[in-house]
Amino acid sequence: MKKKSKIKESLGLAPGTIVYTGYKEKEETFIDTFDFTKSSFEEKKLNDIETCYNYKSTNTTTWININGLSNVKTIQKIGAHYNLHPLILEDIANTSQRPKIDEYEEYLFVVFKMLYYDSNQNLKVEHISLILGDKYVLSFQESDGDVFNPVRERIRRAKGIIRNSGPDYLLYALMDAVVDHYFLIIETMGEKIENLEELLFSNPKESTVQEIQNLKREALKIRRSIFPLREVVSKLEKAENSLIQLKTKNYFRDLYDHTIQVIETIEIYRDMLWGLMDMYMSSISNKMNEVMKVLTIIATIFIPLTFIAGIYGMNFDNIPELHFKYGYHILWGVMLFIFFGLLYYFKRKKWL
Amino acid sequence: MKKKSKIKESLGLAPGTIVYTGYKEKEETFIDTFDFTKSSFEEKKLNDIETCYNYKSTNTTTWININGLSNVKTIQKIGAHYNLHPLILEDIANTSQRPKIDEYEEYLFVVFKMLYYDSNQNLKVEHISLILGDKYVLSFQESDGDVFNPVRERIRRAKGIIRNSGPDYLLYALMDAVVDHYFLIIETMGEKIENLEELLFSNPKESTVQEIQNLKREALKIRRSIFPLREVVSKLEKAENSLIQLKTKNYFRDLYDHTIQVIETIEIYRDMLWGLMDMYMSSISNKMNEVMKVLTIIATIFIPLTFIAGIYGMNFDNIPELHFKYGYHILWGVMLFIFFGLLYYFKRKKWL
Amino acid sequence: MKKKSKIKESLGLAPGTIVYTGYKEKEETFIDTFDFTKSSFEEKKLNDIETCYNYKSTNTTTWININGLSNVKTIQKIGAHYNLHPLILEDIANTSQRPKIDEYEEYLFVVFKMLYYDSNQNLKVEHISLILGDKYVLSFQESDGDVFNPVRERIRRAKGIIRNSGPDYLLYALMDAVVDHYFLIIETMGEKIENLEELLFSNPKESTVQEIQNLKREALKIRRSIFPLREVVSKLEKAENSLIQLKTKNYFRDLYDHTIQVIETIEIYRDMLWGLMDMYMSSISNKMNEVMKVLTIIATIFIPLTFIAGIYGMNFDNIPELHFKYGYHILWGVMLFIFFGLLYYFKRKKWL
Amino acid sequence: MKKKSKIKESLGLAPGTIVYTGYKEKEETFIDTFDFTKSSFEEKKLNDIETCYNYKSTNTTTWININGLSNVKTIQKIGAHYNLHPLILEDIANTSQRPKIDEYEEYLFVVFKMLYYDSNQNLKVEHISLILGDKYVLSFQESDGDVFNPVRERIRRAKGIIRNSGPDYLLYALMDAVVDHYFLIIETMGEKIENLEELLFSNPKESTVQEIQNLKREALKIRRSIFPLREVVSKLEKAENSLIQLKTKNYFRDLYDHTIQVIETIEIYRDMLWGLMDMYMSSISNKMNEVMKVLTIIATIFIPLTFIAGIYGMNFDNIPELHFKYGYHILWGVMLFIFFGLLYYFKRKKWL
Amino acid sequence: MKKKSKIKESLGLAPGTIVYTGYKEKEETFIDTFDFTKSSFEEKKLNDIETCYNYKSTNTTTWININGLSNVKTIQKIGAHYNLHPLILEDIANTSQRPKIDEYEEYLFVVFKMLYYDSNQNLKVEHISLILGDKYVLSFQESDGDVFNPVRERIRRAKGIIRNSGPDYLLYALMDAVVDHYFLIIETMGEKIENLEELLFSNPKESTVQEIQNLKREALKIRRSIFPLREVVSKLEKAENSLIQLKTKNYFRDLYDHTIQVIETIEIYRDMLWGLMDMYMSSISNKMNEVMKVLTIIATIFIPLTFIAGIYGMNFDNIPELHFKYGYHILWGVMLFIFFGLLYYFKRKKWL
Repeated sequence: MKKKSKIKESLGLAPGTIVYTGYKEKEETFIDTFDFTKSSFEEKKLNDIETCYNYKSTNTTTWININGLSNVKTIQKIGAHYNLHPLILEDIANTSQRPKIDEYEEYLFVVFKMLYYDSNQNLKVEHISLILGDKYVLSFQESDGDVFNPVRERIRRAKGIIRNSGPDYLLYALMDAVVDHYFLIIETMGEKIENLEELLFSNPKESTVQEIQNLKREALKIRRSIFPLREVVSKLEKAENSLIQLKTKNYFRDLYDHTIQVIETIEIYRDMLWGLMDMYMSSISNKMNEVMKVLTIIATIFIPLTFIAGIYGMNFDNIPELHFKYGYHILWGVMLFIFFGLLYYFKRKKWL
Repeated sequence: MKKKSKIKESLGLAPGTIVYTGYKEKEETFIDTFDFTKSSFEEKKLNDIETCYNYKSTNTTTWININGLSNVKTIQKIGAHYNLHPLILEDIANTSQRPKIDEYEEYLFVVFKMLYYDSNQNLKVEHISLILGDKYVLSFQESDGDVFNPVRERIRRAKGIIRNSGPDYLLYALMDAVVDHYFLIIETMGEKIENLEELLFSNPKESTVQEIQNLKREALKIRRSIFPLREVVSKLEKAENSLIQLKTKNYFRDLYDHTIQVIETIEIYRDMLWGLMDMYMSSISNKMNEVMKVLTIIATIFIPLTFIAGIYGMNFDNIPELHFKYGYHILWGVMLFIFFGLLYYFKRKKWL
Repeated sequence: MKKKSKIKESLGLAPGTIVYTGYKEKEETFIDTFDFTKSSFEEKKLNDIETCYNYKSTNTTTWININGLSNVKTIQKIGAHYNLHPLILEDIANTSQRPKIDEYEEYLFVVFKMLYYDSNQNLKVEHISLILGDKYVLSFQESDGDVFNPVRERIRRAKGIIRNSGPDYLLYALMDAVVDHYFLIIETMGEKIENLEELLFSNPKESTVQEIQNLKREALKIRRSIFPLREVVSKLEKAENSLIQLKTKNYFRDLYDHTIQVIETIEIYRDMLWGLMDMYMSSISNKMNEVMKVLTIIATIFIPLTFIAGIYGMNFDNIPELHFKYGYHILWGVMLFIFFGLLYYFKRKKWL
Repeated sequence: MKKKSKIKESLGLAPGTIVYTGYKEKEETFIDTFDFTKSSFEEKKLNDIETCYNYKSTNTTTWININGLSNVKTIQKIGAHYNLHPLILEDIANTSQRPKIDEYEEYLFVVFKMLYYDSNQNLKVEHISLILGDKYVLSFQESDGDVFNPVRERIRRAKGIIRNSGPDYLLYALMDAVVDHYFLIIETMGEKIENLEELLFSNPKESTVQEIQNLKREALKIRRSIFPLREVVSKLEKAENSLIQLKTKNYFRDLYDHTIQVIETIEIYRDMLWGLMDMYMSSISNKMNEVMKVLTIIATIFIPLTFIAGIYGMNFDNIPELHFKYGYHILWGVMLFIFFGLLYYFKRKKWL
Repeated sequence: MKKKSKIKESLGLAPGTIVYTGYKEKEETFIDTFDFTKSSFEEKKLNDIETCYNYKSTNTTTWININGLSNVKTIQKIGAHYNLHPLILEDIANTSQRPKIDEYEEYLFVVFKMLYYDSNQNLKVEHISLILGDKYVLSFQESDGDVFNPVRERIRRAKGIIRNSGPDYLLYALMDAVVDHYFLIIETMGEKIENLEELLFSNPKESTVQEIQNLKREALKIRRSIFPLREVVSKLEKAENSLIQLKTKNYFRDLYDHTIQVIETIEIYRDMLWGLMDMYMSSISNKMNEVMKVLTIIATIFIPLTFIAGIYGMNFDNIPELHFKYGYHILWGVMLFIFFGLLYYFKRKKWL
């Protein structure tokens, strides 16, 4: 949506043509690989994709992580080596692709989104693609820096069952790391909503509406990034596919639960944001009421009094009251009586 | 959502790692057990989980109830003894886990929520996990104090069929006790809504909106805690599982009906709360209308009169009316006529 | 929801315990029975349930109608005699049970609601339970007085096919009588909405909102009582059960259509009630507009005129206009010009 | 809903009792018949239903059209002759029956609604029942005058495939004629919405809300009459019934598409009508804003000026300004400065 | 909907009658054909449909593209030649037909919509029909000019796999070209919404509501044109049909994803447009508040001061203050004190 020129450029290209549609065009491509068995592991950082070709023939579990999608060549090379369908390569580079899972004969292809707040507290969405083969997992990310470090650490230290399990568990571990991170996102969002709510009570301003709208849009963005994941994980849990072992499905079921929980929280946030909008509108109306009351009280008290003063400012020859000795003082009495009478009336009406 | 630090801490941990995410960290762990057959029963309170290990080999029905989840060690021990899957242990300690049911080969795992109002009338949600095995039920709660006493009493006194039935009926009895308690919750909520509604008619205040919002949020919270239970109970009712006997399914069907009833009531409450918000907005508008009418009536009556008084306060040399003998008195007549004429006009317009 | 103490009392009772949760506690229990074949029928009124026990062994179709649920003993006795499941007995007495159908081996159990307006035009919901066995129908009602008289009449006079058909048709006939009555309810509701709408146009008052809210709540209550019936009847229509003959299913299909029609009408009423709320809000706004216009017209005309009068009420030594011979008359001319000019201006703006 | 007395009258009647519930009570019954084969056709107008009895035994396709449902006798006679189920006869006369399809062994029974605007542009709903047998189609309408003339013409002139096809195609042709007419209805409704929208921009009045509400109700009425037809046609398309030939199903599929299209358009209209309501509310608010601005401008300009004039109308002995030679003229200067200053201020605030 | 006369004309026509319901009546019909194998291709432009008849018997893949639907004869001729069902021919010419897919024995018939903005930025919807046979694809468009040029180019240059694949891939390529174009449409719409939002913040006007409504309607129109396509593509992906090869289904799955993505974006836009309406309403209310504050401040300050001035303009014989030496000056002091006191009060109330 944002890179307009890109859409126009890519219109009409043959399906399967690889076009990177993201922002990070000049990003270099980094490759890091993990190759492990129960008892051993090997970690490498490569700049050249060819170096990792020989992993394909080994019997170990291999994880090849490609950071940076702007270098279309690398994607093509690895695609050719692992025999990936052209549509997969297109989807890897197409950052606006929504989360999905495609089952092919030799591998599973999973697309989803990593969410994070950047340093300006703006929500960023990063496109992640995973390919699960019989002995390998390929991961593609838009840029360096991810949420996979705990997984790396677990491989290095052989923590949990990750080294004892196959690539399907690795796929799960990577997806789980991303979904775990979603909880941080919705926590941050929850805090934003709470802050906004406090602001709304203490000092509602015109800009508050805009902030509510922004949060609504953010919630929409998160929802859109996460919602289709539900189906993806559900398909993984129920997959009739030899790539995913029975015992790993328990883990995907657990992941499914977490995904549902995130989505439910987002839905609740949307409800709450609608509620905030309602509260804002009612607070505006209340303020208007208050303003109107001040005006009405002042006008109701002083307009009649001014009228009375006007009466005795008239220049008729014959106004008897003007010549009473205490006329002026009596008038003050009458006016004070009206003044306090009206005050009492407003008090009783609870306007004061 | 609330224990922020906890989320950040637990990010990236290996799946199956047990982290208690609730508030009651220093809570000690209490264990009480019931072991019964048709004709006998034994009740114990233990501080040490090992003591109850030998129940596993007996032929009796055993209920082991663990209060307090902060002591992760105990959970691990009992998990090892009963051969529980690591993901189950993680979910037992994870108080933000939504209600769900997981079927494993040797046992069923059920998670749900106990709701209660604390002494400040704040809604509290407590995390409860149940494990149904072939001869035992394990229950895990966040803290001491629960709604299971009637069940305990029924076991002690052999009331109803609980002593004649297996652990599946015990599972039902425990869940039923919790769902029965939900009715108390929604009853309290119903009263709150009624009170709010009365307040809205007698004396709507700015804080009323906030109270409506709070109730809405409370309804959302309840809904979120109970809604997934529907599917849980439905799965229990339809389970093709040897752990649940055919005759117990009638009871789960009944429980399902109760769950639906609670959920429907909550939905109706949400509708009613939206209605209250509407009423509040219309009551503000009505008040504004009333204020405006007062202002308009006063201004409409006195502004023209003040103008007339102003006319005869002018200092022109030649204003013949000023020198009429009864000029002043005639003017009063004219002004009273205008005054009552306008009053009559407002009366007819139903503004008075 | 309403009998609070009852909920608290019944908390934790063993499932299958019979507790009457309705209002009519002191209501006596009346029993009337119909026993008929194609060619004969027998009608009795009993005070003692035992009297009707011998019907069970006859080959005739028997309808036993129990009015009054507060006498739990009677329910227990007949339950024991007809071998009813304890959960059924519980549901018969539990007046807050939502409509449902439970299939047991020897009988079908149907719960639904009878609706009527009492003498104060308040909507009342009465709990009705029906049990269909191979040769009998049992009906349980909260109190005397029902909508079944036409069915009784048809049995007595052998009108229609009721005497030629089995208990399944009798079950249908009873349910049909209740659903037919729903049409009267929604007709009354339709009239109330129409009246409210007319009131809204002729003379909207603050109490109108409350009436709209009340009708909304009434619609919710009706919807809640009828909505689950849809599924009940649908299950009866599709039942693979020897208790219901094929030819009777056509009748249940017809009943299903009627139920749907009632539900659809209720949904339309809810839509219309939302529409009324909108109209009320816009009518308030229109009134405010009208009030504001009056104020603005008066103020806009007289404030400038008063200012002019104020000018010539000043006491400067040197105000030449004051000494013009026709100064006063000219000023009147100017002021009348302003007056009519502004009137014309408001006319053109369509404010008058 | 409308014929109140009728509902009360018909309460408790035995199912299958025929009661005409429409308005056109005194309407006479007209019968017209078409009997045709590929090569021949015969058209008759009858007043007596017995005349058409002999068609039943012929091998030709027969269409018997009965206009007027108030003569219950005729319906009973034809029902007996064609062996129709009592529930069908009840539904034929019950004009509030919603669209549905019932499959019986020997025939299909279809109920739906004809919509038209009467001469006062009020939407009228007419009840139509069709019965499809192996060699005949029976149609029942509330009154003379229908949308079937094009079908009659096609039979007379052997246009299209109608004469070559069986009664199932005739059923389709009749339903198609009615659905085609729906497009005219929604077109008229579309025009009404457009007109209302233009009115809303040019000259919104209080009555506009009422017109929007009326259109909403009309849309609800249309939706309710057409929505269930979707399922009816879908069942016809998928029917596993020897009465409907395979080749005719293509036509029903086409009819299904048309029905969906009408329903979708109605849904869009409802959305648009909600939008109009929003626009009306915002136009009221805008007008109020305009009124308030006029008031505020006038008051803000003249109230301070009047105050100044009031100052120099005071009778203090010692007000030095009063005795300045050009005091009066200077004051005018000051007041004009204030006047134009405020005008400029309002101009800048875009209030003018 | 728009061509009113056309609807009335076409009422009652026999199904299968071809009536062009679009706008472009005088449009001439152009035909262009592509005939290709792996190694060769032939491109032609024809004015006469008969010329392309002989392609039917060749073994090559043929694409016949007919531009212009007003010439009903041509459609009839080609329909006869390719043995198309009359209902298909009717749907090809009926531009208001919604997207759908019909499976016939020998071919698949697909209808969908091409969207584009014309030179006035009005959304235009063009009706496209495709027929997939075993060796050919027929395409029908309303007018010259389309989005198929990239596909033509790929055939000419043998780019991608289009020349190696059968007509099913060609069908996919044509549909893909249209769906790709949808992304441009929603991008344009996204920009319009952003512009409107900026306008709303900088300078909301009465016409803004209308623009929001127009965009809402545009979104409805797009949604209606695209939404049914989801099902169409889904059916193509899952078709058990020999016309569509297994390997092409991957491409349809991809197309399905794109369609979903477009639909989701449209839904988000609708949400955002509702949000804009909310913002507009709150901005009106805010403005009103601002206006009211100005009025209230001015009135509250000057009305009491004017009253005081009125007091000392009275003509009582005995007003002692008038004769104080510095009475006038003291009064000014009092009035300035009131003036600044009220200013301070409004400052503290944050009205200034």
